[in-house]
Amino acid sequence: MSIPLPALLSDRLHVWRSSVDERLASYCELQSGCPEVLRDAIRYSLLAPGKRLRPLLVLSAAEACGCDPGEAIPAACAVEMVHAYSLIHDDLPAMDDDDLRRGRPTCHVQYGEAVAILAGDALLAMAFESLATDLPPEVAAECCRLLACAAGPTRLVGGQADDLAAEHDSSEYDLAQLESIHHRKTGALLAASLQLGATIAGAPTEQISRLEAYGLKIGLAFQVVDDLLDLSGDEQVLGKRTGRDSDLGKLTYPRLLGIPESRLLAANLVEQACGELVDFSGPTDTLESIARYILARDR
Amino acid sequence: MSIPLPALLSDRLHVWRSSVDERLASYCELQSGCPEVLRDAIRYSLLAPGKRLRPLLVLSAAEACGCDPGEAIPAACAVEMVHAYSLIHDDLPAMDDDDLRRGRPTCHVQYGEAVAILAGDALLAMAFESLATDLPPEVAAECCRLLACAAGPTRLVGGQADDLAAEHDSSEYDLAQLESIHHRKTGALLAASLQLGATIAGAPTEQISRLEAYGLKIGLAFQVVDDLLDLSGDEQVLGKRTGRDSDLGKLTYPRLLGIPESRLLAANLVEQACGELVDFSGPTDTLESIARYILARDR
Repeated sequence: MSIPLPALLSDRLHVWRSSVDERLASYCELQSGCPEVLRDAIRYSLLAPGKRLRPLLVLSAAEACGCDPGEAIPAACAVEMVHAYSLIHDDLPAMDDDDLRRGRPTCHVQYGEAVAILAGDALLAMAFESLATDLPPEVAAECCRLLACAAGPTRLVGGQADDLAAEHDSSEYDLAQLESIHHRKTGALLAASLQLGATIAGAPTEQISRLEAYGLKIGLAFQVVDDLLDLSGDEQVLGKRTGRDSDLGKLTYPRLLGIPESRLLAANLVEQACGELVDFSGPTDTLESIARYILARDR
Repeated sequence: MSIPLPALLSDRLHVWRSSVDERLASYCELQSGCPEVLRDAIRYSLLAPGKRLRPLLVLSAAEACGCDPGEAIPAACAVEMVHAYSLIHDDLPAMDDDDLRRGRPTCHVQYGEAVAILAGDALLAMAFESLATDLPPEVAAECCRLLACAAGPTRLVGGQADDLAAEHDSSEYDLAQLESIHHRKTGALLAASLQLGATIAGAPTEQISRLEAYGLKIGLAFQVVDDLLDLSGDEQVLGKRTGRDSDLGKLTYPRLLGIPESRLLAANLVEQACGELVDFSGPTDTLESIARYILARDR
């Protein structure tokens, strides 16, 4: 099920990822009341091979703020559920109409459109259930608030709506609008991942704010690299179609800035992100290695 | 915007409904980041004329458990958001493919399929944001847990998945399976509405359990009446298409039991529900009037 993480990422991150995958699998052992085809579709999408970038950010942030990362696993699973839900719905025929994801047919290709819509809906609800049920009560409500805000109409959903609108007419979009879309569509959930880890650790406001800034910066870098990979990446390695952006007439960083400038922008963003990693009570080396991995990734 | 509530329901319920509608409208004043078309679609669906049955149940349960109903308004809005989201997604072409709801074109007919999917997604996230942000922290996490569980794959979403499957082949379904679908698809959110109100009031477990039982019973009665209205109701009054169930080959109570037996069943369920309303610290007359209204409703 697992895909190899690059050597840049430490053995500890591999162990963390296994712990997250185990817990994700246990969240998929749904009680009676869940039809089999729905459970299959949820498992298929949530347990698909993936980097588990967002869960690793939750755990790394908790560690940087001096907390045992194990305490943050329910939150790590919750952000992965929100991520999986957003991929299922983004891939739908009415949205990006994609047929390949993480090297396999997309959820609606595999299970039909109705089940795919419902599997996404279910994963969004499951995310809040895992936070509300499995985190200590004194942080659970604040974590639900952070995740709901990141997933809602002004962030994740709003960014996706504007991204779809830009597909149909990207002529009037500029760099600021592209950044705004990606801050909401990608950055908000990455930033929330870090905020959740820090909140569980009981971190002071300044640390949470610096982690949020780090998250928005690596989020933007992630998107610039995504655009570059869509131009020149290997479909086999990526596990999804390349060339989709230009097929859909999407506005991308390489299209706006050119390839060399886009590479430079991504590198600068990662440097700026790493610059935020000061004055933490725990180690920040995993956050630094994740930021550098985002720049160097080929999938 | 408002539709008349029958005389059975007291003036106080009308006042409550106005308070809920006002708060729902304020939750729709979304911050920057939410595209205009998405905000419009959210408002269109959430503020559509409706009975606001679930919000009224939240407030009535809070009152029955001795609490000021005003304290439960964020939870009342949250269950209405979940209800509105589920209607938008249920009406989609890939699901029930309905074009009329609450007397107006359905969300995807009005705004397109992509925006409708996203508006539903946004409303689900907004529900948890309102609970986590606007309820006292000591009850917010438990309320998020109750709502997430009711909205998740073993309840609301699972019921809808089985309901869709039954459309394609209802030949092997019996009364127990029909009841199981409706307990999940309708009953769970009604029961959660009552549990939320009671939880905010700090009610003891036995009261919460009796309210849950009341909720499941009126939920089933509601569904039996829904089936009867689909057969013989007035499309103008109902604000949605009638005859849809038989068009879709759906299993219904009248089809399984006949019309007179179905009417008797609904009446019995409402009596049983009212039988649960004993040993509460506050007044239970609004809960009783809501149960009787469910039986007598023509929309």
